[in-house]
Amino acid sequence: MFETAELGRKVSRKDFAEQEPDLHTALLKAQFALQDARVPVIILISGVEGAGKGSVVNRLHKWLDTRGVETHALWDESEEERERPFFWRFWRVMPPRGGIAVLFGSWYTQPIVDHALKRTDVDAYERALHRNVQLEQLLVDDGALIVKFWFHLTRKQQQARLEADLEAGTASPQLKAYARSYKRFTKVSERAVRLTDRGVAPWHIIEAAEEYYRDLTAGRLLLEAMQNRLALLAMTPDPAEVASETQIVPTVGPTERTVLETVDLSARLDGKDYEQRLEDRQSELRKLAWKAKEQGRNTVMVFEGWDAAGKGGAIRRVTAGMDARLYRVISTAAPTDEELAHHYLWRFWRHIPRCGHMTIYDRSWYGRVLVERVERYASPDAWQRAYQEINDFEEQLVDHGVILLKFWLHISPEEQLARFKEREQVERKQHKITEEDWRNRERWDAYRAAVHDMVARCSTDYAPWTLIGANDKKTARIEVLDTVCEALGKALD
Amino acid sequence: MFETAELGRKVSRKDFAEQEPDLHTALLKAQFALQDARVPVIILISGVEGAGKGSVVNRLHKWLDTRGVETHALWDESEEERERPFFWRFWRVMPPRGGIAVLFGSWYTQPIVDHALKRTDVDAYERALHRNVQLEQLLVDDGALIVKFWFHLTRKQQQARLEADLEAGTASPQLKAYARSYKRFTKVSERAVRLTDRGVAPWHIIEAAEEYYRDLTAGRLLLEAMQNRLALLAMTPDPAEVASETQIVPTVGPTERTVLETVDLSARLDGKDYEQRLEDRQSELRKLAWKAKEQGRNTVMVFEGWDAAGKGGAIRRVTAGMDARLYRVISTAAPTDEELAHHYLWRFWRHIPRCGHMTIYDRSWYGRVLVERVERYASPDAWQRAYQEINDFEEQLVDHGVILLKFWLHISPEEQLARFKEREQVERKQHKITEEDWRNRERWDAYRAAVHDMVARCSTDYAPWTLIGANDKKTARIEVLDTVCEALGKALD
Repeated sequence: MFETAELGRKVSRKDFAEQEPDLHTALLKAQFALQDARVPVIILISGVEGAGKGSVVNRLHKWLDTRGVETHALWDESEEERERPFFWRFWRVMPPRGGIAVLFGSWYTQPIVDHALKRTDVDAYERALHRNVQLEQLLVDDGALIVKFWFHLTRKQQQARLEADLEAGTASPQLKAYARSYKRFTKVSERAVRLTDRGVAPWHIIEAAEEYYRDLTAGRLLLEAMQNRLALLAMTPDPAEVASETQIVPTVGPTERTVLETVDLSARLDGKDYEQRLEDRQSELRKLAWKAKEQGRNTVMVFEGWDAAGKGGAIRRVTAGMDARLYRVISTAAPTDEELAHHYLWRFWRHIPRCGHMTIYDRSWYGRVLVERVERYASPDAWQRAYQEINDFEEQLVDHGVILLKFWLHISPEEQLARFKEREQVERKQHKITEEDWRNRERWDAYRAAVHDMVARCSTDYAPWTLIGANDKKTARIEVLDTVCEALGKALD
Repeated sequence: MFETAELGRKVSRKDFAEQEPDLHTALLKAQFALQDARVPVIILISGVEGAGKGSVVNRLHKWLDTRGVETHALWDESEEERERPFFWRFWRVMPPRGGIAVLFGSWYTQPIVDHALKRTDVDAYERALHRNVQLEQLLVDDGALIVKFWFHLTRKQQQARLEADLEAGTASPQLKAYARSYKRFTKVSERAVRLTDRGVAPWHIIEAAEEYYRDLTAGRLLLEAMQNRLALLAMTPDPAEVASETQIVPTVGPTERTVLETVDLSARLDGKDYEQRLEDRQSELRKLAWKAKEQGRNTVMVFEGWDAAGKGGAIRRVTAGMDARLYRVISTAAPTDEELAHHYLWRFWRHIPRCGHMTIYDRSWYGRVLVERVERYASPDAWQRAYQEINDFEEQLVDHGVILLKFWLHISPEEQLARFKEREQVERKQHKITEEDWRNRERWDAYRAAVHDMVARCSTDYAPWTLIGANDKKTARIEVLDTVCEALGKALD
């Protein structure tokens, strides 16, 4: 695979000087056009140690308008980063629509190094690579352009570079360490390039022994990728007319039974019993939260449910017992400008807690398959893809040790109506009822089908949905607290 | 995930009888329409043991016109099958365009059983599942419709079924064995469903406790999937107008250096030296071929090269020494009708040898990225996808223990011209030169770029390309034999 990057290709200083101005102009033009088209561009700078990746980055800085470009060196993880799932650090640096991110080191770096140094076996390595493919697919599905460069040197060239650097006193520790196992690194890297060389994010292997050829080639390939994307945008027909391979999975009709009909809505708790159990559970949770802090375990809770089902009240009963330094409640309202400029999961990745902390999402990423599906804010392709994206996302959390709990608060349409009316009548509750609530209510059947599909596809053994009967608020709150305490108790043993 | 298939849904005998005729008619209609549209349909029947999968298959036989349907029970591998890579048995039963295959058991069966019985760890399991996704993507990219059913029972329902079967004396060994570890199987199956539930081939989970609901639902979901595909075909605009996410990877221009320029074309062997070395190597190969037979190792060789580069002559020098029972030469000419009705890899999968045997392909699957690319028989999307498909295919061969060798016989354009002219002048050689050869010659630069890309993308550490300088036929033949003997010698130690 790399033999085609060992041909001794060169560009003279003179030729480079002649060709650079046009390339520079064309790159700027393409950058501005993609900015206008709001396409995020992600450039991965990878390859053999000593191949001059730093110089390439400097050259790109010269050629592009740096106001739209962010460069991130993704070397060793920081403490902040180690306390989150692997992909968190990459989500942090994702460019907004219209921006360019140059990633010096990437989601490939650690899997390659780990496998080359035999810290992981081949199955684990391939699994990591497949996760990279999934991430790239998700970004491309969202409109991103990903340009992946692999800069190659032969063993001899790497050795020569090492010796020169040693003499100059500028050899990086990586170069020293990796040059010792050139063959192993090459074999391992070949596997990464091969398995992740997909049409939506192909690799460009560049012969890096000679700097003018290397930089000019990288610049040209980047330009071609940008121009191709612009050409594609220009020719895209009406999206409604584009046939998609995605199969439409039929959903339940209004007369069919759904998983919501299995929820018991009849249970009632009397006031005294409720107070006692509430107090017991809250004091238990207080202790568990500290224990989680000690053990460095994160907790993430998701609250979804019908309008007026009592999400806010249930959340307050969960947090009431806890030290405010240990938790955050994230209310998911309409996205900010910055959030809209990113993938829909980005706004949730931002808030993933550090070790030992708790984040409670009042509404969550499930909006993609609930409101965005029902209100058609997301295309059928987009929300159907989301089930898999969400499962992958949650698996990353759980694999990292996050305790993940998901609640759907279920009430009957009659109970909702009663609560809406009460809200309209009681002054201090009037802010809680809007036109939108009434509109949503009219779409009860569509939401019911969406909830059913959400449970069918995203209730997993590592992150099951808990459906809570909430016609009686007290019962619902105690059931939530019971579930939280049991899950934490079990996980923290 | 499976809780939405535990809702106690039922259909009465009467309702079933009322609804069946319309469904039956609609299914037949959809079947004939897809036959006309030449869409191959693959139906996977999977799920919990005891869920009545056999009855569902019988029902489908009743509803569909059986002339277009083939059903395959994919239980334990036969001896024939064990001697080939895992996917070989599935490639055997792929339906032709316009046909339907009902697969009772599938590429999921063995990975699930292996992991449930803890013969494989989770990384190996996920890797197997990802390979399934790749296979399905490849089939869908080729136009197939894949409908995947998962029939679900609760533990209690499975137990009841087991007891009934035991009493009737009809309990299958699988049911007896798997019912003991219901929970483990469910967890493992959930992972399979979750990780392979992609839009191009989604899973349909069906509650299977009650037969009328089960069969009616399966029939309806199948019908919807077929109808959706037909609707899609009707609305597809001109393919040239459909924007594809696939990035176009730039290729080398006529003035750029390619990997072919690194091949030494100057070597010459004199007649006497040649005869001696030929004899030595052929006698060595004779022994190695028997050794491979004893050790049960397959060998696959691929010969590609310019027209008149001497592929046939080189192949004859390889086979001359060997027992004719041990090898087959497959000349890849224009595909047969049956081959055209399948995926392009199907015709090569057919000929994968049993253990201990050797298959030599005179031209091969690389036609996809050579002639089909240059002559535009395949779309850019299709041939760019092919690099990955070919790498995956070859990896399966090598993982199964196949010794895989790939030769490109390289000659200069001047040498080709001389050989063409000689062929025209010598009567016994005239059949070897056609108009097509002259046409191909005019596209030298396009082929040169295609060969370069082929080596760049498909020369892997497990299946490298060997580029042979063939301006001197004798040198080329000896070099091929040297490479074959060394590779076999090394692999058979």
